Amino acid sequence: MTIQTNETPARGPSEHNIRDQVVEAATAHFGHFGYEKTTVSDLAKAIGFSKAYIYKFFDSKQAIGEVICANRLAQLAEIVDQAIADAPTASEKLRRLFRALTEAGSDLFFHDRMLYDIAAVASRDNWPSAAAHQQRLRQLIQLIIQEGRQAGEFERKTPLDETANAIYLVMRPYICPLQLQYSLDTASSAAVLLSSLILRSLSP
Amino acid sequence: MTIQTNETPARGPSEHNIRDQVVEAATAHFGHFGYEKTTVSDLAKAIGFSKAYIYKFFDSKQAIGEVICANRLAQLAEIVDQAIADAPTASEKLRRLFRALTEAGSDLFFHDRMLYDIAAVASRDNWPSAAAHQQRLRQLIQLIIQEGRQAGEFERKTPLDETANAIYLVMRPYICPLQLQYSLDTASSAAVLLSSLILRSLSP
Repeated sequence: MTIQTNETPARGPSEHNIRDQVVEAATAHFGHFGYEKTTVSDLAKAIGFSKAYIYKFFDSKQAIGEVICANRLAQLAEIVDQAIADAPTASEKLRRLFRALTEAGSDLFFHDRMLYDIAAVASRDNWPSAAAHQQRLRQLIQLIIQEGRQAGEFERKTPLDETANAIYLVMRPYICPLQLQYSLDTASSAAVLLSSLILRSLSP
Repeated sequence: MTIQTNETPARGPSEHNIRDQVVEAATAHFGHFGYEKTTVSDLAKAIGFSKAYIYKFFDSKQAIGEVICANRLAQLAEIVDQAIADAPTASEKLRRLFRALTEAGSDLFFHDRMLYDIAAVASRDNWPSAAAHQQRLRQLIQLIIQEGRQAGEFERKTPLDETANAIYLVMRPYICPLQLQYSLDTASSAAVLLSSLILRSLSP
């Protein structure tokens, strides 16, 4: 495709603005019609750009979805960071982490269903943004466990890696939008029960 | 509906055979065309009965699906019972329970996809057979925990109910066909990791 041969630097100084404009319009359009049902042609018509022009800035519909998804995941990361920032102990951090993730996921489902659906596609198709998010959460869990081990709150016999993986697995059905949709009515009480079980499993 | 006013005892001695015949034909038909896409009319045509005749024996398509689902769940219950029967400890029973459930669910997905889909509908719509199965598993977990507590294997501080519920919640994403489909590739290693986490949480 000749379009693809345009080098990024040649796209000019307004590229950033145009990318933002496409993402903004796409967010609205996906929000109304759903990510899966929308084509790049639909988007082009809605924005008033040519399809070829959009392809100058994004390789595919997924590339636009990725930006929307990454923006939302950055917000989620901030919510999580704030939730655990002033927790006095590693145990409390784990509880708050689980609660914040469950609440944010449920909020998205009930208040921004179309964005939830993009997140579900991202998770199903293992988009880089979704994979990076999972990796960050997995690392955050490991950091909290290390902190708790150093403070003498948590046992140290189990390999750190195993502990972190297992805890991530307990949380995953409430983090992953594909799975969370089947537990929405019990998610908040489940987060409490499962946090307690996790903390019992960590006791020295 | 006048059909519904026929009392069960008046249906005659061959009722059981005819019910079996309908269930058998329905299992094959659902297996080819899927449960959701098949109507009672389709079934009637395939079996060579009138639709009204089928309605003499089953109130609805779901009632037929329920029998298929209940048959399969009875098989699953037997697999689980056999898996844990000769386990030397309560800990080993929990491990084997988790493994047997995950394996049976994965087998169903890969080898009898249409039946898996009926199970998914049963779970989504909370059919009595699916609800009873979940309740049985929940009780089985509680019995194993009681056994382990009595043997001194497991801690006794946490309320029994809370412990059993939390463990059931850890296992549920691998039991529920709606959720299992998103973890198939990691289900068997997850069952091992999560069993170990559960056992750490139970240590006295």
